[in-house]
Amino acid sequence: MGSAFRHHLEPQTGIAFELEKGRTLRVIDPAGEQVSDIVAFASAGPGRANASEWLSSGRTIDYNNTIYLTTGHVLYSNRSNPMLTILEDRVGTHDFLLTPCSPETFEMLYEDHHGYHPSCFENLTQNLERFGVGGDEIPTTFNVFMNVEVLPSGEIAIGTPLSKPGDFIDLRAEMNLVVGITACSAEKSNNRSLKPIDLKVFG
Amino acid sequence: MGSAFRHHLEPQTGIAFELEKGRTLRVIDPAGEQVSDIVAFASAGPGRANASEWLSSGRTIDYNNTIYLTTGHVLYSNRSNPMLTILEDRVGTHDFLLTPCSPETFEMLYEDHHGYHPSCFENLTQNLERFGVGGDEIPTTFNVFMNVEVLPSGEIAIGTPLSKPGDFIDLRAEMNLVVGITACSAEKSNNRSLKPIDLKVFG
Repeated sequence: MGSAFRHHLEPQTGIAFELEKGRTLRVIDPAGEQVSDIVAFASAGPGRANASEWLSSGRTIDYNNTIYLTTGHVLYSNRSNPMLTILEDRVGTHDFLLTPCSPETFEMLYEDHHGYHPSCFENLTQNLERFGVGGDEIPTTFNVFMNVEVLPSGEIAIGTPLSKPGDFIDLRAEMNLVVGITACSAEKSNNRSLKPIDLKVFG
Repeated sequence: MGSAFRHHLEPQTGIAFELEKGRTLRVIDPAGEQVSDIVAFASAGPGRANASEWLSSGRTIDYNNTIYLTTGHVLYSNRSNPMLTILEDRVGTHDFLLTPCSPETFEMLYEDHHGYHPSCFENLTQNLERFGVGGDEIPTTFNVFMNVEVLPSGEIAIGTPLSKPGDFIDLRAEMNLVVGITACSAEKSNNRSLKPIDLKVFG
């Protein structure tokens, strides 16, 4: 991957790639109000992930003492190692509670659902397969721009993403990583309109 | 395991065992204000867990639309299959956001920490090893009686467990399971006093 890597994720698609320690991944919402699910694994050398060390929502929420990760926060692995640091964040509202949308998500939560539906889970598994990561190894994703509120009752309220066109978040790799990332496929999380996501790696 | 299985977990200890589909696990807080971390894996036959199918906080929170799981809620696996149903709950406040306390938890979050400290993570891994589950395969645990509040800012507030002496929660297995469970070792989660947990399997 060159130092000026850029990628345009069409709506309801995903990609996986290696991200070297020290480089920064910018996730851009070009049209606004679009979620992007991210997962990361430690690298096991060129072209291979170590699926045993994975981005952990539980460790991250625990160590940062908040469900809203933003500038300055570190995202941790299940082994309590820093994986990614949020260097800049133009939105400030992202989710780390919920799993990527999957075929079962649409069956269980979408009343008007019939037949096949693209999903972040499928887009992650298909792209991570060549790095040696299976679907059962995908944990709770860091859902960039996803607007999830926890009400005092404990109830979850999924709102329209607060991201405006061009807003972004910068994530610096703190170890060599394999990263999977999507333009989210779930209508309810994206104000009923599925849009692209732009990626840039620099530094 | 007989039909009248009972077990007393001394403070800062854990156990793992097989729980047949249809049986109910009662987790009792005999002294009150004591957390118990639970993890579950699908069974792969006698004496063996299928570590690829694991209790998923993300799926469970998503499908139940709440962070506070209580009577009537179903706890799901990463494959979106029902694992456990909460049949009865005398407390109503349990956590499903945070990972089990581990050596790193005490290093990072306990200002007065020095040297070795028992942990739920160690108690789970040591007991799950004989079922073929490794430490890297332990996801976010269902932390029974743990009192975690999400403030409007997103900040996490860990309070004293609301459980009184003798309070319990009943969890019915919806598939054959291997279950790991602890009497939690973290002083801050247990009102600074580490107490036992009682278990009963019936039905």
